Amino acid sequence: MYQNKKNITVVITNRASYGRIKPILFELKDHKNINLQIIAGGSLLLYQFGNAVDIIEKDGFKIHKKLNFNIAGYDLLSQSKSTGLAVIEISNALNELNSDAVITFADRFETIATAIASSYMNIFLVHIQGGEISGNIDDKVRNSISNLADFHFPSTKKSQKRLINMGIDKNKIAMYGCPSIDLIKNNDLNLPLNKKYGGTGDDINWSLPFILILQHPVTTSYGDGYNQMKNLLDSMKVFNIQKIVLWPNIDAGSNDISKAIREFKETFKYDGFHFFRNFAPEDFLKLLKNCICAVGNSSSFLREGSYLGTPVVLIGDRQRNRERAKNVIEIKNSKKEIIKAVKKQLKKSKYNVSKIYGDGKSAKKIVQKIVKLKFKKI
Amino acid sequence: MYQNKKNITVVITNRASYGRIKPILFELKDHKNINLQIIAGGSLLLYQFGNAVDIIEKDGFKIHKKLNFNIAGYDLLSQSKSTGLAVIEISNALNELNSDAVITFADRFETIATAIASSYMNIFLVHIQGGEISGNIDDKVRNSISNLADFHFPSTKKSQKRLINMGIDKNKIAMYGCPSIDLIKNNDLNLPLNKKYGGTGDDINWSLPFILILQHPVTTSYGDGYNQMKNLLDSMKVFNIQKIVLWPNIDAGSNDISKAIREFKETFKYDGFHFFRNFAPEDFLKLLKNCICAVGNSSSFLREGSYLGTPVVLIGDRQRNRERAKNVIEIKNSKKEIIKAVKKQLKKSKYNVSKIYGDGKSAKKIVQKIVKLKFKKI
Amino acid sequence: MYQNKKNITVVITNRASYGRIKPILFELKDHKNINLQIIAGGSLLLYQFGNAVDIIEKDGFKIHKKLNFNIAGYDLLSQSKSTGLAVIEISNALNELNSDAVITFADRFETIATAIASSYMNIFLVHIQGGEISGNIDDKVRNSISNLADFHFPSTKKSQKRLINMGIDKNKIAMYGCPSIDLIKNNDLNLPLNKKYGGTGDDINWSLPFILILQHPVTTSYGDGYNQMKNLLDSMKVFNIQKIVLWPNIDAGSNDISKAIREFKETFKYDGFHFFRNFAPEDFLKLLKNCICAVGNSSSFLREGSYLGTPVVLIGDRQRNRERAKNVIEIKNSKKEIIKAVKKQLKKSKYNVSKIYGDGKSAKKIVQKIVKLKFKKI
Amino acid sequence: MYQNKKNITVVITNRASYGRIKPILFELKDHKNINLQIIAGGSLLLYQFGNAVDIIEKDGFKIHKKLNFNIAGYDLLSQSKSTGLAVIEISNALNELNSDAVITFADRFETIATAIASSYMNIFLVHIQGGEISGNIDDKVRNSISNLADFHFPSTKKSQKRLINMGIDKNKIAMYGCPSIDLIKNNDLNLPLNKKYGGTGDDINWSLPFILILQHPVTTSYGDGYNQMKNLLDSMKVFNIQKIVLWPNIDAGSNDISKAIREFKETFKYDGFHFFRNFAPEDFLKLLKNCICAVGNSSSFLREGSYLGTPVVLIGDRQRNRERAKNVIEIKNSKKEIIKAVKKQLKKSKYNVSKIYGDGKSAKKIVQKIVKLKFKKI
Repeated sequence: MYQNKKNITVVITNRASYGRIKPILFELKDHKNINLQIIAGGSLLLYQFGNAVDIIEKDGFKIHKKLNFNIAGYDLLSQSKSTGLAVIEISNALNELNSDAVITFADRFETIATAIASSYMNIFLVHIQGGEISGNIDDKVRNSISNLADFHFPSTKKSQKRLINMGIDKNKIAMYGCPSIDLIKNNDLNLPLNKKYGGTGDDINWSLPFILILQHPVTTSYGDGYNQMKNLLDSMKVFNIQKIVLWPNIDAGSNDISKAIREFKETFKYDGFHFFRNFAPEDFLKLLKNCICAVGNSSSFLREGSYLGTPVVLIGDRQRNRERAKNVIEIKNSKKEIIKAVKKQLKKSKYNVSKIYGDGKSAKKIVQKIVKLKFKKI
Repeated sequence: MYQNKKNITVVITNRASYGRIKPILFELKDHKNINLQIIAGGSLLLYQFGNAVDIIEKDGFKIHKKLNFNIAGYDLLSQSKSTGLAVIEISNALNELNSDAVITFADRFETIATAIASSYMNIFLVHIQGGEISGNIDDKVRNSISNLADFHFPSTKKSQKRLINMGIDKNKIAMYGCPSIDLIKNNDLNLPLNKKYGGTGDDINWSLPFILILQHPVTTSYGDGYNQMKNLLDSMKVFNIQKIVLWPNIDAGSNDISKAIREFKETFKYDGFHFFRNFAPEDFLKLLKNCICAVGNSSSFLREGSYLGTPVVLIGDRQRNRERAKNVIEIKNSKKEIIKAVKKQLKKSKYNVSKIYGDGKSAKKIVQKIVKLKFKKI
Repeated sequence: MYQNKKNITVVITNRASYGRIKPILFELKDHKNINLQIIAGGSLLLYQFGNAVDIIEKDGFKIHKKLNFNIAGYDLLSQSKSTGLAVIEISNALNELNSDAVITFADRFETIATAIASSYMNIFLVHIQGGEISGNIDDKVRNSISNLADFHFPSTKKSQKRLINMGIDKNKIAMYGCPSIDLIKNNDLNLPLNKKYGGTGDDINWSLPFILILQHPVTTSYGDGYNQMKNLLDSMKVFNIQKIVLWPNIDAGSNDISKAIREFKETFKYDGFHFFRNFAPEDFLKLLKNCICAVGNSSSFLREGSYLGTPVVLIGDRQRNRERAKNVIEIKNSKKEIIKAVKKQLKKSKYNVSKIYGDGKSAKKIVQKIVKLKFKKI
Repeated sequence: MYQNKKNITVVITNRASYGRIKPILFELKDHKNINLQIIAGGSLLLYQFGNAVDIIEKDGFKIHKKLNFNIAGYDLLSQSKSTGLAVIEISNALNELNSDAVITFADRFETIATAIASSYMNIFLVHIQGGEISGNIDDKVRNSISNLADFHFPSTKKSQKRLINMGIDKNKIAMYGCPSIDLIKNNDLNLPLNKKYGGTGDDINWSLPFILILQHPVTTSYGDGYNQMKNLLDSMKVFNIQKIVLWPNIDAGSNDISKAIREFKETFKYDGFHFFRNFAPEDFLKLLKNCICAVGNSSSFLREGSYLGTPVVLIGDRQRNRERAKNVIEIKNSKKEIIKAVKKQLKKSKYNVSKIYGDGKSAKKIVQKIVKLKFKKI
């Protein structure tokens, strides 16, 4: 229809990813030479992960394809098969959308599915957040995706250097920081939340302090998730402060963590725990900014947390090697260590802003660069 | 059953790959600490690609799983979707086989499907022939696989160095040459072929010279295959020598090449062309050894051809950057250049043996190393 | 291995179906001419439906294939796609198992997937519980399956007659009653439950009376499930009697019902509600036998309930046309009607045993007949 | 967009089906209250079956979805799995198209896939050509589809009666004849073909007589196809008349038949055989009208052949029980019987027109009826 517009397709499959790519979506949507196409899939469509697709539509974006490719089970086999089904469904979608370029994000199983579909469909692939290291299977997958991508927007200088060291042509890399920081910069992140999210457990008094808890499964230690989460929740009992617990993402093993949360909810009646299923990205950032301590293994604690200066207690291996600012205390998953580290962070006030993940002006630069790319496969 | 045996699963999906991994299969089969499990899939099961699975069984191997995951079409979309279905079916198979480690090979879409399934199933992944460069989409896919693999057996020194430069831990790499050379060394490769293969076209007189022609599709220039093959076949008319033409593999675009062959067969009655669908690996090597010139873009012309000293005319981009010995003249796909280069090679006799791809003692070393590995992920 | 044994494959995908086919499984397992092969799939493998596959293994059966083919979502699209994936996975399984005959059951989406896979694989298909009518999409699916099946064991005389009226050859039908009644006859169904099931809500005192509540989604009025279940639970508040609420099955719409239960649990603190996820079939029958009234739309209330004489309040369309004994009061889904009908049933004691669904001697006869069949298609 | 238009979706997956439904497509396309949506899939998209989708577009229809769901292999397993993948892809397509009603046709594996997807998606299903009998697995599948459909347009009085006898509500049946006859009535079917089709073998002289040969696989005697086709082709050698041989459809076993054709082509140089891959429906009808005898097992020989009065030799079981006019001699697959029957038919001139399959005024009536339907499930 718009013959000189390029079809830029963004594949979003996950609540956290949406928040991080949202500043780019706004830039793409407004650009006169770009026809933005959004594929929403995976856990975005599932009730138990909060139907996050609704949030995208409420933000004013048209979703061109909704793909449900998650095979129920949340174990290793199901996750692996979901990756395969995602390749099939994303291939179909890209074929119908006549995409000129695909933008994908980070290191998830849906991301490598997107990368494979784009590669075999001969569609130019842009990867954001390549070159990072964390822990878990994610490092392998992330590097694997980088090798399939045609252009790279790493988020940090160290990541940029790692990509070059991996043999990626430096002319195919541009480092403008992480767009996730733009979202922080562009929004007022003061409490209270202005939407009503429901959730379960005790009511939250937003004028009082709270601890934020978010623990995702660790694929490479699949099977330990239940005990890890149980440990973490039990540790939190000793703190006479409000606690906000978020449900984990859909990775293999999420069921174990959910089970630990469910059992905790049902057996323990201690005041002060509140459990939330889902947030708009900005509202999640409000929590992360305003909590007095964030505990768990979410990468947001290190990425967005660095800029927000949030005191963080990082547990276990999932983010073991991830780049971080001074706001993070890293510990093993033991009750004793968790309690000790949280106590230590509670004595701190906010940390200083760190710009290792960018200065909040990333999205515009990324899109200006994308527009100039030739979308020529090699 | 055999409690101290390790389940080593080899995934084979392609006629050419079988030939190259066969020496390793024999070593694995005979090893007292290993329970060899073979997954055969993809084009190995298809009539139009010669039901090559029968050859494996005739060689005395038990096939534990036969997976048909190819979606008909042979265009980009079908190949991409086939990759997805392969991930699903290989995941199921690995789950049932209770694999301790998976061995995969080279750079095909089935290979990356195997790599993804193994990675998400938390199964140790061994990759053979990593670190090479060729051209086509294969480079990206090969490097992507290397980043998912847990141990690497590259085939050449340069490949080994490239893996290290990519950031692969050098303790996870062992370079013993390519097992494909073992097959050459271990077999008498004199003509005539001792099996009857049928095929179509004029009869071959094995005591007279012949040119060998094998051209595969090039994914990154998808759509040009028909003309490329037409060109090549037309060029061959000027040579008053027997020609053996092999059908292409199943990659996206193979249909175009097949169409060119079919039309050529039906419209041109020139004496001297013979068309074959399939060969046992050793019989293919006999052709490659005994032809007076090999023309096309098969990687075997460079890999096995280097050791055999076969005069080769390499056409187009598919192997553009692949490591090679002195036996190769590389040209663009034009009739004029093809004819000129073939004439030049016809004046040559055999080239000297080159050992850049190994000395034919690779398989035993690889298996001895595999047995010592701990199969510990990350 | 056992050359004169026939491979009889039973596909089980559902907690309720397992209970009903269990008497047949015992007969098949013990028969000297039969090699019983069990395929377990679907919701049997899912935590949120109680990992019912464990119960099958604890009962001493070997499970030959575990197939997870449920696509997450629990909406119409996901259920439809799950049917497709089930066809793929069951086809693969039947191919590997080298089945001589397949036994399938009732009217679920997994059942028609089994019927299609068997039909196209040219494997003899035995269908149990054909010819019934209920309501919902199930009638169409059930009749569709009957037309694919090669032999039929309907459960009631009326069902047998309906099959004949549909044009099924009467020589391919044998009516021996429903094997589900065998399970009642062969077991002591007195309380208390001898296993510990956990569950949530208030503790149950097994020596006091309780109402049993089980409401499944109705595909043909998809979207109304939430309100229907909310209605039902709210109605139950007026009764000062213990209530046992079971979670629904996996059909499209189950999410809506689960949501209503979850919200009810979280907002209403009334004493006397207990929520259970899963039961061994015999334990479910104990509840059904010993409750003072069963409320909802489970087919078991009519089928097993008829023999047990349980007072039943049947709500809505799902079983509208199902054959029943005198123990059932059928109403529309309104609070007023529910309360009125439950009150009426609470005044009743047990109803008399009805043998419309059989006399409890079905399984042996069915298996004796199966052994004599020739497994010849068409 | 057109708020008071109904979305009527027609699923076409097969060259023959397209011809038969084409008169209905024209009526639907022109109707002011209907938004015609075409899903083209399966073998229509495959080169080896003639890319028949191009013909549909050349006829002026927009194709809304192209679905490639055929799993390569053409054996029973592949066909069964293709059915499953078709369910998945058709479900996705119906979901995106927001269909109000789906029209499906006859008795193929793609048809039952369409029926299942429509049923579980709660979309009104119209079935054309129900109630027929033929032979093969098709009868079971056809009846199975009839039980899923919401409205029925059988093609003959006997078919209508059979549907009623099966228990289908007679108010949900309308018999207006088969739309395939409309295509005959509405077109001049005189030779020569006005398009150039290529094909292989000897040239055809359209002014001389020819025999038409078309043999499809028979699923229920899977494995015999090669010999059956070899037999048939060998028998044809004795006739010194031009022969036009068509390639079979994609059903399981088509590979065997294709192999027999290919081998015949390559080994036998007898003048007078011509092999065609594909035809526009009208051109196929020209062949069927103008041949002096049609030999094989295509249902078109009985259906369209009855109206055209073509002398037919029907071989084997595939159409064993199909309704027919006097133009058909039915025989077993033996060379002797084939030769004898063809000789007998060659002595005949055309048979009289029979209207058992309709009078050529079917499509308009069918569409007028469809427009009046309420598209209410159950």
